[in-house]
Amino acid sequence: MTTEIAPRTGRAFKLNRGQRLRVIDPQGEQVSDMLAFNAHDIDEVISSGRTLDYASKLFLTVGDPIYSNRSNVMLRIVEDTVGRHDFLLTPCSKDTFRIIYGDEHPHHGCFGNLSMALEPFGVKPDQIPVAFNIFMNVQVDGQTGALTVDPPLSKAGDHILFEAEMDLIVALTACSALQSNNYAFKPIHYGVEG
Amino acid sequence: MTTEIAPRTGRAFKLNRGQRLRVIDPQGEQVSDMLAFNAHDIDEVISSGRTLDYASKLFLTVGDPIYSNRSNVMLRIVEDTVGRHDFLLTPCSKDTFRIIYGDEHPHHGCFGNLSMALEPFGVKPDQIPVAFNIFMNVQVDGQTGALTVDPPLSKAGDHILFEAEMDLIVALTACSALQSNNYAFKPIHYGVEG
Repeated sequence: MTTEIAPRTGRAFKLNRGQRLRVIDPQGEQVSDMLAFNAHDIDEVISSGRTLDYASKLFLTVGDPIYSNRSNVMLRIVEDTVGRHDFLLTPCSKDTFRIIYGDEHPHHGCFGNLSMALEPFGVKPDQIPVAFNIFMNVQVDGQTGALTVDPPLSKAGDHILFEAEMDLIVALTACSALQSNNYAFKPIHYGVEG
Repeated sequence: MTTEIAPRTGRAFKLNRGQRLRVIDPQGEQVSDMLAFNAHDIDEVISSGRTLDYASKLFLTVGDPIYSNRSNVMLRIVEDTVGRHDFLLTPCSKDTFRIIYGDEHPHHGCFGNLSMALEPFGVKPDQIPVAFNIFMNVQVDGQTGALTVDPPLSKAGDHILFEAEMDLIVALTACSALQSNNYAFKPIHYGVEG
């Protein structure tokens, strides 16, 4: 069964150990910010710093694990038809839209959507770390360090598949930031398998 | 007054708004992992993801602010004789030494030193995010995403100077990871000014 996340919204749900999570870009060029917390102890959460350090690379794909702040594997990527995702940047927020876009009445962004979706699970906004930004295409200049947010490489129907290695609470968004999704707000589809 | 942080140890202390923190590499090629928390609410902490997003670059230097998870400026870099620091990787820990170095009896690392130094301020180990790794020289291949930890560019006496833009609890280490400091454990010096 596939669930639709409407443009500029988010969802959170349980994903048990051994279950798989398929995240699909139904129209292409859309991003989904993903978070995962230990379902039995929400102080354990995905960690970009641990994951990138142990992988010794910025760009994760098939076979790569996503580690927690306690250095446990939370998820592993088992299929990936795109091969380009971001694990550097925090979810877009009203502050992002204020600081980067100069909006006077900023949208609450993926950060707001993740906060609302995770509230029933006891997660507070301050506990939201760098998300694994599925399909987000951040170009990095290794010499200058310049970061550029380009349109995703995902085409309609592309997907990534994760397997949970512990019981998780997962949150996903259909991203709200114009730069990230080539200036068109689109839905995201996902399904839990197994 | 300059304080010495002995090799493979850490310290935490108050740094009030308007005060400056000078971090010196007395012998050269040493790294200091830095964390900062809001002194009045430790749920507010430095955020690599917010900072790199707003800066649109990986490598911070003079003039660049370090943002919190609430998108407030915590610190600003006001002097920097090295110009190369890391804000991607979490502090080295016993898990780092186990996973990356294959140590059978791993040292507790900067993570353990930060945890111990911050405990009197009420900070729990799970609250330790990606540190601002002063003088750490992580080379990034923008094409492949490969990360390589090279010796720091700092020479004996080099320094970086921060100004606090809110009342902070700051923690610093003299780094414990062989790759980060060119395979020699050395001290770090710091001073609070103003």
